[in-house]
Amino acid sequence: MITSKDNSQLKTLRKLQQRKYRDRMRLVVAEGEDLVDAAIAAGIEPELLLRAGEDVEPDLLAGVSALGSGARVIGAFPQRWSEPGGELSVYLHGVHDPGNVGTIIRAAHALADGPVVLGPDCADPWSPKAVRASMGSVFARPPAKAAFADLDGTTIALERGAGKPLAQVAADGPLVLCLGGEREGLPPAIVEMADAVAHIPLRDDGPDSLNVAMATAIALYERTRMAPDA
Amino acid sequence: MITSKDNSQLKTLRKLQQRKYRDRMRLVVAEGEDLVDAAIAAGIEPELLLRAGEDVEPDLLAGVSALGSGARVIGAFPQRWSEPGGELSVYLHGVHDPGNVGTIIRAAHALADGPVVLGPDCADPWSPKAVRASMGSVFARPPAKAAFADLDGTTIALERGAGKPLAQVAADGPLVLCLGGEREGLPPAIVEMADAVAHIPLRDDGPDSLNVAMATAIALYERTRMAPDA
Repeated sequence: MITSKDNSQLKTLRKLQQRKYRDRMRLVVAEGEDLVDAAIAAGIEPELLLRAGEDVEPDLLAGVSALGSGARVIGAFPQRWSEPGGELSVYLHGVHDPGNVGTIIRAAHALADGPVVLGPDCADPWSPKAVRASMGSVFARPPAKAAFADLDGTTIALERGAGKPLAQVAADGPLVLCLGGEREGLPPAIVEMADAVAHIPLRDDGPDSLNVAMATAIALYERTRMAPDA
Repeated sequence: MITSKDNSQLKTLRKLQQRKYRDRMRLVVAEGEDLVDAAIAAGIEPELLLRAGEDVEPDLLAGVSALGSGARVIGAFPQRWSEPGGELSVYLHGVHDPGNVGTIIRAAHALADGPVVLGPDCADPWSPKAVRASMGSVFARPPAKAAFADLDGTTIALERGAGKPLAQVAADGPLVLCLGGEREGLPPAIVEMADAVAHIPLRDDGPDSLNVAMATAIALYERTRMAPDA
């Protein structure tokens, strides 16, 4: 039973709250039964796993929680990455908010067969907020990293008010839906290079844009609404 | 220029971080230029409006921020509520997360003509997190409050895996999409009373459910994809 906050496992968990240590150690922290179970169900072996009252004093475990979630179990697992691919996948550019990145990973897991591909300037998918927002999908369907230029398949740039309504874009074969950060959108060079440009029709009397996670979910739904498993 | 944290306007702003004072005073706080502008653009007169460096010392204004946003302007505005109605609207039951409530208000503003109707056990739409997630839509399209039994129009209960795919539900006239909290879903009594039960088809190898804001956005999109302004 760990009884000192100077214990090396607790120190590791504290370090992993920072991206630089996550990147260096290639680990991700899962807080709480649901996320730990999701990692293990995905076949990932924990590097360390601490249960309150069994392995560690409850207060000490609470002290290393990044989310203040009062989790009774916290584990550190190796990060896993996918390769880009699939009949339908998502490419994100400049999506800074970890909650949005995690939510998008969950939505893609629910609606697509391919991963979420992270381009430049995206939030760390292994950050505590992203992992929690993914509800464990980050383990079941790991994200990928790639540059736009390296994507295979037909790329559709989603830009508010640009191109055709997504429902009217005819496109076959592997499809990559490309979205930028909420304020900036995609860089003009990417919009130019994409095979098609499309938007989600919004009401004229509504807001200028949707939240990027919302827009991604709608776009994924539009491309799979008749046959999500096809 | 306000130079003391005991100033009565600052006291009011601090109180408004708590729901009981928001309910009692029927006020909502807008932090930052974008949200203050959205409230004013919606024709709502501020009860009080403080700008850092003009009306109040910047540190004192930062001290009353609920979001720690470093906002340079904070205003308190009267809460406004809508009546249920519209050709398409949303009814929420037991959606506890203020970020989800705010995001749904934004999505409904973008895709529907009716308000988000809040049933029992929903997060306060006037909480700082909900207001921020709404990106100001909470001012432009205020939420409503009603019991399920008092809704007019055709009600569609959205439940994971239940009923038909939403795209296959034929329904005319004013439509109310009804969603429950992410874990619990809708109470069985509401599912029973609804005019139709539907689900959003998800992949078999994916997560059990979508985030409730995501599910709402997809459902709104499905009902308006061909004509959002119709």
